[in-house]
Amino acid sequence: MDEQIKQSVLTELKQILSDRVSIDETVLQEHGTGFSYHQSSPPDFVVFPHTTEEIASIVNICANHQIAIIPFGAGTSVEGHILAVQGGVCIDLKEMNKVLQLDLEDMCASIQAGITRNQLDALLEGTGFFFPVGPGANATIGGMAATRASGTNAVRYGTMKDNVLSLTVVLPGGQIIKTASKAKKSSSGYNLTQLFIGSEGTLGIISELTIKLHPYPELSQAAVCSFPSIESAIHTAMKTIQQGIAVARIEFLDAITMRAINQYSHTDYREEPTLFLEFNGSAQLVKEQVQRVEHLAQEFGAQGFVWEMDEASRKKLWRIRTDAAPAIAALSPGAQMMSTDVCVPISQLAKCIVETQAEIEKTGLLAAILGHVGDGNFHLGIPIHRDDKNTLEKAKGINERLVKRALAMDGTCSGEHGIGIGKLSYMSLEHGQALEVMRAIKHAIDPKNIMNPGKLLPE
Amino acid sequence: MDEQIKQSVLTELKQILSDRVSIDETVLQEHGTGFSYHQSSPPDFVVFPHTTEEIASIVNICANHQIAIIPFGAGTSVEGHILAVQGGVCIDLKEMNKVLQLDLEDMCASIQAGITRNQLDALLEGTGFFFPVGPGANATIGGMAATRASGTNAVRYGTMKDNVLSLTVVLPGGQIIKTASKAKKSSSGYNLTQLFIGSEGTLGIISELTIKLHPYPELSQAAVCSFPSIESAIHTAMKTIQQGIAVARIEFLDAITMRAINQYSHTDYREEPTLFLEFNGSAQLVKEQVQRVEHLAQEFGAQGFVWEMDEASRKKLWRIRTDAAPAIAALSPGAQMMSTDVCVPISQLAKCIVETQAEIEKTGLLAAILGHVGDGNFHLGIPIHRDDKNTLEKAKGINERLVKRALAMDGTCSGEHGIGIGKLSYMSLEHGQALEVMRAIKHAIDPKNIMNPGKLLPE
Repeated sequence: MDEQIKQSVLTELKQILSDRVSIDETVLQEHGTGFSYHQSSPPDFVVFPHTTEEIASIVNICANHQIAIIPFGAGTSVEGHILAVQGGVCIDLKEMNKVLQLDLEDMCASIQAGITRNQLDALLEGTGFFFPVGPGANATIGGMAATRASGTNAVRYGTMKDNVLSLTVVLPGGQIIKTASKAKKSSSGYNLTQLFIGSEGTLGIISELTIKLHPYPELSQAAVCSFPSIESAIHTAMKTIQQGIAVARIEFLDAITMRAINQYSHTDYREEPTLFLEFNGSAQLVKEQVQRVEHLAQEFGAQGFVWEMDEASRKKLWRIRTDAAPAIAALSPGAQMMSTDVCVPISQLAKCIVETQAEIEKTGLLAAILGHVGDGNFHLGIPIHRDDKNTLEKAKGINERLVKRALAMDGTCSGEHGIGIGKLSYMSLEHGQALEVMRAIKHAIDPKNIMNPGKLLPE
Repeated sequence: MDEQIKQSVLTELKQILSDRVSIDETVLQEHGTGFSYHQSSPPDFVVFPHTTEEIASIVNICANHQIAIIPFGAGTSVEGHILAVQGGVCIDLKEMNKVLQLDLEDMCASIQAGITRNQLDALLEGTGFFFPVGPGANATIGGMAATRASGTNAVRYGTMKDNVLSLTVVLPGGQIIKTASKAKKSSSGYNLTQLFIGSEGTLGIISELTIKLHPYPELSQAAVCSFPSIESAIHTAMKTIQQGIAVARIEFLDAITMRAINQYSHTDYREEPTLFLEFNGSAQLVKEQVQRVEHLAQEFGAQGFVWEMDEASRKKLWRIRTDAAPAIAALSPGAQMMSTDVCVPISQLAKCIVETQAEIEKTGLLAAILGHVGDGNFHLGIPIHRDDKNTLEKAKGINERLVKRALAMDGTCSGEHGIGIGKLSYMSLEHGQALEVMRAIKHAIDPKNIMNPGKLLPE
């Protein structure tokens, strides 16, 4: 950025935010590095607004100078969403972490976008309600909306697209809009809520959300069981879904993931293909579901069922699952993670995973397989050292062939992580002519291309 | 339309469609008249394509001559969606009514957009699966997607927005796109599926859909019970939802609606505020839910519980409910219906209905109240004779004040019927600046404004 422009932008930002503008090298560097193997790319400024109106003022400054704006939540993106590839102003929403209205009668809450999952969980404790979308990382709810995130609960409760009633968005021209009312359903106009969910900051900045809350189930029960093969575990998951059993979670972890977990979390699970399961509902319903799934799993040779009945051990189990990503990375000390993210129709899942595993074995790459198999979504966790070009190239090759395999099965290159810069090269292959519609929308809403440029849409 | 242009359009259309082009006055008139009080407005041509490619060719002809295109399903819109307000070509999709692929392993079906609800139900019979979105009318699935329709089942299974995996759309430039893959979830790019759902034919023509199917529940049980007042019935519904009881249907019908039903369907229900309920699930789950709701209803003074246990009487009950609209219209022989359609947060529902009823009483207008109260959505059914200006004005006044009441409660002017021409005047009030985003999207995708012009977006 031109030094003179930089100076005037800094002056203007400080007029609004006083000391909540940073040009500290460490801060800039932190904000230009995601949770992944991508090369870092710092912004010129990091700002910490407190209100939607402050965001609008920041956007106006950037729009006047035509400089890039990068919205930043917790920085847990794995696809380079927050890299400032053209420099510019990073808007860190971490200080916008308040619950604005808790409305239990309507089972929803209005929140600022910078609140994290863990902060929200803590604030909801004791209300009898919870927010069900839980990716592995302690992401912000705004960031999760921006990437259309999901996680282990999605098989039962849906993804961010299913759990947001409305958004407050600051547009690239500084206007503030609300995308919908608090009504549970509406046929009034284009669905702007869903347009901004998953738009990765390329159309505007999500500053506030009204999210749906769910009543805690009467009972939750979790289980771990291991299988003689990947196929048998996956077929158990497929049959569970196809029989309409409303499991709350059904997670696959391969033998490598189980080894990583045992080392990282000091557990002693069997190091075999494994399912982590959860059942929610009334005592009677949970009992029925458990019986049906246990029966199915045993038909596929499952062994060593461990039931986690009490709240503490159930929570521990899911923390262990959440820690699977760092556990896999720790298999190769000092490594970053590359995480693939395809999602395929459930009928194709076993085939997709088995073919992928055969290829991994052929290349000799260290890659763990795990995923939200009830949704047909799975990840390869590949530890990567940024300077190890050889492994990086191998991993990229596996990812590319995996994406092509998934697309050929009528699946998608990203089930929940988004495009960022990491998956740009697959957008044309996945969407064909529909990509032109996305480009037309981007151009209509952000004609100056200042909103998170270089992300989601390939040049 | 200029006579010379008309002739060349006719010639070009016939080259593609041969005798599947109509300029018959009766056909034109039929296609320019919806199910409502709006004045009819016939198109210049009606065409009956068989494939997506034929639609693309039709669109190209219209685009070349810059004439309007009106997609037409079953013509059951109540807000004037299918009126050819600028003339042009009405594309009737009724001959595109095939199931292209029934994929029970992935619990979905790919269908042509012109298939009706009843046709789809018949085709799915015996598969063990059903499509849950059911508005009153025998609409086409494409039309239901275009208006983001819902109905009695939405409280449990969601609306069209929740039950479509992907769409095939013909754009205003004749390009054919697919909006998504068959994966259950995706974070790949803007959510075009949700952009076209509810776009009312103003952005493109939905020609094919991949819809989600649901396994038939083990058991369904329905019930009818009546209440001493509207408030007590509505409070029963509100509590049911707030306690997280997953009713499959919970429908309110006021005393006038019950009287209309008794006359139309030759039944002898109590002519009092009434709930129609349905419970789906395993035998045990249904039993639990029934007990909880029956207990709640009794607390609010419910009487005369009638249980419909067998399939035939349950089906009969819901046919009676479906016939409520014609039953209300029949209260005033020869009348058309005006149907209001607000949806409010559930906590506001009793207040909204009670205030509305007080106003109806004051005006002396004949207006029945009924609705999908589990979603906070209800309708006034007002019989209107098109030449009775006085009643029409009164009804419009009530609708306007009802919409404003709902918006003040953070609700929406349309829960499920859409905007068409009937609700254009409320769009600015409901959406504010967000309306400009909708306009920008419309202009970006349909710069010539040939796709169902005059609908959804006010001038």
